[in-house]
Amino acid sequence: MLRTLNEVVERIKESKRILVIGHTKPDGDDISSIATMVLMLRKIGKTAEGCIADNIPWFYKNLYGVKEIKNVEQLGDYKYDTSMVVDCSEISRIGDSIKLLKGKNPDITLDHHKTNVGFGEFDFYDSSYAATAVIVYEIGKELGMKYDSNLSEINLLGIATDTGFFKYTNANYKVFSYAAQLVKLGANIQHISSAVLEHKTINELKLQSEMLRTLKIKEDGKLAWAYISSSMFKANDCTDEDAGGFVGEIRAIYGVEIAILFIEWPENQVNISFRSKNYVDVSKIALDFGGGGHARASGCSCKNTKLEEVIKEVVLNAKKSLKEYTM
Amino acid sequence: MLRTLNEVVERIKESKRILVIGHTKPDGDDISSIATMVLMLRKIGKTAEGCIADNIPWFYKNLYGVKEIKNVEQLGDYKYDTSMVVDCSEISRIGDSIKLLKGKNPDITLDHHKTNVGFGEFDFYDSSYAATAVIVYEIGKELGMKYDSNLSEINLLGIATDTGFFKYTNANYKVFSYAAQLVKLGANIQHISSAVLEHKTINELKLQSEMLRTLKIKEDGKLAWAYISSSMFKANDCTDEDAGGFVGEIRAIYGVEIAILFIEWPENQVNISFRSKNYVDVSKIALDFGGGGHARASGCSCKNTKLEEVIKEVVLNAKKSLKEYTM
Repeated sequence: MLRTLNEVVERIKESKRILVIGHTKPDGDDISSIATMVLMLRKIGKTAEGCIADNIPWFYKNLYGVKEIKNVEQLGDYKYDTSMVVDCSEISRIGDSIKLLKGKNPDITLDHHKTNVGFGEFDFYDSSYAATAVIVYEIGKELGMKYDSNLSEINLLGIATDTGFFKYTNANYKVFSYAAQLVKLGANIQHISSAVLEHKTINELKLQSEMLRTLKIKEDGKLAWAYISSSMFKANDCTDEDAGGFVGEIRAIYGVEIAILFIEWPENQVNISFRSKNYVDVSKIALDFGGGGHARASGCSCKNTKLEEVIKEVVLNAKKSLKEYTM
Repeated sequence: MLRTLNEVVERIKESKRILVIGHTKPDGDDISSIATMVLMLRKIGKTAEGCIADNIPWFYKNLYGVKEIKNVEQLGDYKYDTSMVVDCSEISRIGDSIKLLKGKNPDITLDHHKTNVGFGEFDFYDSSYAATAVIVYEIGKELGMKYDSNLSEINLLGIATDTGFFKYTNANYKVFSYAAQLVKLGANIQHISSAVLEHKTINELKLQSEMLRTLKIKEDGKLAWAYISSSMFKANDCTDEDAGGFVGEIRAIYGVEIAILFIEWPENQVNISFRSKNYVDVSKIALDFGGGGHARASGCSCKNTKLEEVIKEVVLNAKKSLKEYTM
């Protein structure tokens, strides 16, 4: 049930032992929101644990607090009075963490995805927020949190990553002014950007080169897509984790409005990333294929399918979307 | 002579007709500082013109105010009572615009480069500023400027580009809080980032691929360099303008501390870009070869030289620099 931020804060204050759950295929906002929330709750004397039922990309682990996040096995015996799900538009996004909820709805949910419908007892979701980490920052303020440089930095991580490091339309006044506060409190943005963006290996560069060779540009240059097959990953000794950010390379092409990257990983499963530049709402395309996300960045996953077939189907849908905006 | 910002503002108030000059090979901060200053001065009833004695990369021209910047020929007959040089550490950086100064020192200079020594009558230079555009913003505030969305956006351009779109260490409290103000006043950061960063052509992507094939990584992965020869440019129907940002791709490699890109353009002239990640001051290396810049981003230009020889010499110097930090 949708509540005000104040009601959520009051609910948090009543809790003693909290479990904070994020989504599978965790991104910077997810990781930041969990770690920041857990650290804040501990700072005000609560017992708190964070959980992600998936691997956390290695390059996040150098950031303070990330190593505190545990997996489902580690938390099997953890007793809590309050469960919180962050950065998830629906309950299926938490993956195997569902086991820890033991059939109950989460007590609190915090999210900023447009496609969120509310699935907890105390839900706060609002797509005008650029990141769940922005909501977490406001909760911190309400809790009278004393930020140190580490807490500031991990909170800033999610604000930075979900705004494309302050490049997307959602980088609004709140985003920049909260970032200013967090930097003043000791967060080092270069530390975050270097950890998250500057960790390419030679193999990843080779993979990127190969991906660019599959590039197709159609619809007067407005639609561009590329793919990475599972055999391309294997040939370059890479996994899907190494392709993070590649879709941005496609969107960076002049004139491109919709950029799509098809990632076949593992075999016969295709994960698709959509990005748009100025006007197309790509969350709608993702939604058509059972995914979700934001207007300028979305994604979906197709199982038991062939790469070529998915490409054909998705590209057709994207062409239609594009036409709706140009008619 | 070094003055306070207030003294500079008073000097501006006394002027009636101003000429604002930037540097050759203009970057976002240079263009932003000139355009913002010219537009602000006109808003308060002054006559003002901006000049760059070089081509302005085409992708900046969609941003408001940039088309107002003229070249030396167009301003040959322009009468001014006050000359201002922005974003230049020394007078030679203005190129042929020197003709417009008719042998006199500039009346006002504004700059944030560490290597600035002061070469005007009213100099304000301070390397604690992330961008000259930050200084321009503060002057705007002192002048009681009423910002509209266009003025906000062109001012934000320089703050964004000189901080690597809010990713470098210099993205401090001032940077984020001024950006917050400018966004509140109507600047659209996505408009800027899309114009400046998302304009790659297929030929540029091919050129980038070729550049990556020249990549060398030494010194335990800490030093990486690549080159683009003039023949590589020609083969891909590109010019040196198309290689902007390529050095960032080299720095993005995991473990790399110093990234160097050698650009042979035109033939027998080699322009070199240096980037560092965490601790090496690459402005010192650039200075050794007659260039300049900042601790994490610098550059220099070697004329009448062979690509292979410059690479050998510069790499040797960079290895020495690296050793100074690791001893």
